Amino acid sequence: MAKPRTLEPEQWELWNSWMQAQRLLARELDRDLQRDYGISKAEFSVLVTLHRAAEGRLRVSELAESLAWDKSRVAHQLTRMENRELVDRTEDRSGRRVGVGLTAKGRSAVENAILGHADNIRRYFFEALTPDQAAAIHVWSRRVVDRIEARCGERADQLDANQPIM
Amino acid sequence: MAKPRTLEPEQWELWNSWMQAQRLLARELDRDLQRDYGISKAEFSVLVTLHRAAEGRLRVSELAESLAWDKSRVAHQLTRMENRELVDRTEDRSGRRVGVGLTAKGRSAVENAILGHADNIRRYFFEALTPDQAAAIHVWSRRVVDRIEARCGERADQLDANQPIM
Repeated sequence: MAKPRTLEPEQWELWNSWMQAQRLLARELDRDLQRDYGISKAEFSVLVTLHRAAEGRLRVSELAESLAWDKSRVAHQLTRMENRELVDRTEDRSGRRVGVGLTAKGRSAVENAILGHADNIRRYFFEALTPDQAAAIHVWSRRVVDRIEARCGERADQLDANQPIM
Repeated sequence: MAKPRTLEPEQWELWNSWMQAQRLLARELDRDLQRDYGISKAEFSVLVTLHRAAEGRLRVSELAESLAWDKSRVAHQLTRMENRELVDRTEDRSGRRVGVGLTAKGRSAVENAILGHADNIRRYFFEALTPDQAAAIHVWSRRVVDRIEARCGERADQLDANQPIM
């Protein structure tokens, strides 16, 4: 490992501004989902993942893998969401939950929330950007992803350009 | 609330790239701290916060507030870090931990880790940026922070330009 060097003060300033921007942005988006749609960040993640799936249904193990959550977290979250009638379950013969799907109420909730979320992303993120800045951030984002993936020798998640990543 | 509008496909693509870049970047920085310095993200947050404080000591309540962690999380984290001899405690008469400070080992660990962290930020973040992109990201980050702060009517945390935000 080469001897590490510290950053220049203006580099720390950029880094800190950028970290603060992303943290405030994430906080505002989460708060708005909760306030406008009554949906927590965790609920939105589950609903969006189901909404992308064929017919809005997944096996619980697939959902857990897609969210990168452990099983007990998924189980607790789904129980709460079943109680709110946002999702329903498929059981095996012994009554164990094996699959989960959007209810009509869940589908309607997530479709409204995605639209509101998109609107908030536009207000907080895109309306603060000039086209040149957008292009610069896009190029840079892709380069960061490429560099890290090349280093890790792994593929990142497949992206669907029309769906939010949470 | 005006009727929400969705994003254009190229806007979703930029947003998704940006979210993925920041997530991979955070993951790599955390992994490198663990691998190169044996320090978790939570430990680094505690050590950096103490390192910024006068003489490397804080009241436990000040530390909890600065990290925005609840008391039980702080207490568990500090117990682990006392066992690793990274921090030591000040007790009140009843033996309750009231203050916490860096040990010599903790100070040395955090100073090495900050330097390594800075080096990693340079490699992953700055080396992927042209000066024009850096300027664009800096202007945009400050604008996002200003917009959100104006909307919230609150001051964000004071920034120290020479310290990492975790």
